[in-house]
Order: sequence, then structure tokens, then C-alpha cells
Amino acid sequence: MERDFLSNVELYFSENISEKSGKIYITGNEARHIIRVMRHDEGDEIFITAGKGKIYRTKITGLGKDEIVSEIIEEKEYENNLENVSLCIPILKNFDRLEFALEKSVELGITNFIIYRAKRSGPKNPKLERWQKILTAAMKQSLRSYLPKISFVEDISELKDENIIVFDQKYEEAFTSWIARRNTLTEKTFFVFGPEGGLTEEEITGFSNLTTLKLTSNRLRSETAIITFSVAISLLQR
Amino acid sequence: MERDFLSNVELYFSENISEKSGKIYITGNEARHIIRVMRHDEGDEIFITAGKGKIYRTKITGLGKDEIVSEIIEEKEYENNLENVSLCIPILKNFDRLEFALEKSVELGITNFIIYRAKRSGPKNPKLERWQKILTAAMKQSLRSYLPKISFVEDISELKDENIIVFDQKYEEAFTSWIARRNTLTEKTFFVFGPEGGLTEEEITGFSNLTTLKLTSNRLRSETAIITFSVAISLLQR
Repeated sequence: MERDFLSNVELYFSENISEKSGKIYITGNEARHIIRVMRHDEGDEIFITAGKGKIYRTKITGLGKDEIVSEIIEEKEYENNLENVSLCIPILKNFDRLEFALEKSVELGITNFIIYRAKRSGPKNPKLERWQKILTAAMKQSLRSYLPKISFVEDISELKDENIIVFDQKYEEAFTSWIARRNTLTEKTFFVFGPEGGLTEEEITGFSNLTTLKLTSNRLRSETAIITFSVAISLLQR
Repeated sequence: MERDFLSNVELYFSENISEKSGKIYITGNEARHIIRVMRHDEGDEIFITAGKGKIYRTKITGLGKDEIVSEIIEEKEYENNLENVSLCIPILKNFDRLEFALEKSVELGITNFIIYRAKRSGPKNPKLERWQKILTAAMKQSLRSYLPKISFVEDISELKDENIIVFDQKYEEAFTSWIARRNTLTEKTFFVFGPEGGLTEEEITGFSNLTTLKLTSNRLRSETAIITFSVAISLLQR
């Protein structure tokens, strides 16, 4: 099992990597956490990802007050099975629930997130910086090697020419039967979740390449629908 | 679609039902919510469940300060597809996460919960009353008609003679392949999730009728594993 390489470790994140010299530099909060909280020292082995698919087993060779130099000993590259999956999530009323859905989705392997303001979204503003931190932490926690990305669009119609899947309980075809007909998602696909109250007709008819699916036969809260989708696509896609 | 009976309604809960007279009595907080927050009045139709499988369409015929009498107009009975599924959840460090997992699992149709103190659980005490409220609210929110039950056992060995499934990333067989070999769970089965740090060997070897499965190939937080299971069993069981 490939994942054995990684069982029961902590994974750290740094984009400051020189594959040529085989060294990774960690600074700031991440370095302070490794030194002060995890109490790592020179000679210790730590696992690091730069968020681009590889996980490096490294050995700490230099240690400053909030700076670490670590040498690559071994590396493994993982595939991003869900790279063609983008989750489009509306601004919800309750940000705790939204953030929980983001965290769970990353743990399940989702790496692309678009937050949008639905017509029925409230006036709250997105907190992209905070959310990026949540995504990065969830990537590390679940030992994943692709840094999830999140962006914001004020209007979902920006995606009007993309492959769009809209979920609503009122639609006929079940997501499970739709996904069973596919081995893998070969094209970039945007899975759009509605806000409390759903998408408007205008929002839905604006998409030129639209598939409508039902996720479950029962009513789900917005954040439950998002998590349900993430579980289903991660378990059912091969 | 049978669920159309119920789309976009609020569902209320009262066990005080007389099928003989065709009347349901609602008192206390639930009645106050219906009268003061939802502003229902005599003659209004409301949906009520007693948590035993039926949902009643009723008409309010009497209204006191915190008391409602409502007459049954129509009823539908639903099956509990997951009645043989019991989730065994350890006392976790973070009760917010535990409660989120409970709520999501009810939304996905789980109705039996056992909270246990694992050897590696902390010293926190269960909050059964609070958790029952969360379960009841989630049942209503997701328009389900079976009142979820929750209980606490101090030691998981009380279940030693039951059909037990233990999940851990280290096991060989995947849950998805295990469930694919079953059409439906014909026997009562207890799905045991470990605490942070996992179950001890002693806890695991204490079960006489044990199946070990891997839920996903990636590491998941305890509450994510619980939710992932709930999604999978609700989508994959027929």
C-alpha cells in the first residue's frame, strides 16, 4: 500500500523548494510550529509537501529561530484523481457550516473550489484568506499533496459556457446513476450547489451546457449536500 | 415521487398522538415555536411526525398559549432502510465535531447511535440530552419520520457478541466492496469508529464476531469517517 509511506506522520507545507539542491526551506508560522510545538530538531525526519503532488521525506539540516532547512531523502508523487472536479459553493448564511463543508471536502480529495454569490445568498463577504488557511490545514491533516485552490466569483454566470452540473432534489436523475456511467471525469466539470432557497430560474437557464441531478431523495442542508457529493465522488469515481 | 407530499414544508414532532380520535397534541417549546415563530393559527395545515415512521398532514383545530390540537387529514408511512445500522461513536475531544457528525448522519438516515468511552477517549462526559435534541432537530429538518435514538455505554465490550464492523485505514478490504456484496443489511450490525489514536488491540480482540474494513485509503478525521460512512451506506445500500 503506497499510503504506508505516510501512515501516522505530520505533514508540513512549504512552496519554497529547490529540487536542484534537494533542499526545502520552511519559514514563518509553519517553522515555528515545527520547532516550538512539535519540538523537532536537527537530524529529525519530517514530511513536507509543496502542494503540487509530491510528498517529500526530509531530514532537518539547519534550524534558525523561525526557519528550517530540510534535505530531501525520498519523494513520492500522487495523482490528483479529482482534478477535473470543481465545487461551486454559494455564500451561505452560516459560515461555520460553510467552513466545515470546505474542510471535509478537502479531506475527501477535492482540490478546486469556487465560491459564488447566488441571487439568494445573503450580503456577507467571502473570507478567502481564512478559507485558504482552512483548506491548507485540511490538506496537511489528511496527508494530501495537492494544495486546494479557492476563488470567488460575484456572479455564477461567469461559468455559463462550462460543463455544469446543478443539484436539486426536484430533478429526476440520481447522481449515483450518473456517476456509475462514467469511469472517470475526463473533462473539467463544475458541480454547482444552491444556497438556502435554491438557485433562481434565471441562474439555471443561464448555463449553456447543463446537466441536472438529484443527490439524494431526502432534503439535505446545503453543507450536507456538499459533503455528500464529496464523499460520493471520492468513493464512486475510479 | 413520494417525497413530493413533503417538499418545502416544516416538520414538527410530537409523540402525543391519538390515532383513534385522529388528533395530535403539541405542547411546550414545539407548540410555542409553531405559534410564535412560525405564526400558525387555527385552520392552518402543519406536518407532524411522532418519530415512528409516519408523517401526518394535519389541520390545527385548537390553539392555546403553548398548546396545539391538530387533526390528522392524511398520513404517509416511510420505511427505515437503515434500521439495522447502529453507529458506535467514541467520546471525541472536540464535541462540536462530534455533534456535527451526529447531525449529518441523521440527515443521511441513520437512526441508531451508541456513544462509548474508548480506552483512548478523554475524560469528558456524554451530553445525551443535548445530543438527543440535535438528533430530533435534524430528523425534522431533513423531513424524516424515525426518531433517532442515542445511548451511552462506558465500555464497548458490552457489544462483544454483536455483529461488529471496525473501521481503520490499516485494514485490507474496502467498505465499498463489502457493501457492494450486500443488497441490504438483514442483521443488526454495529459500525464502530475509533477515537483519535484508534481502538486498542484489547478493545478489538474483545469482539467475537468482527469484520475489519477500510473506509477510504486516505486518513480521515474521526468525524469525517463517521459522515463518510453515513453517506456511503445511505447511497450504496438498496
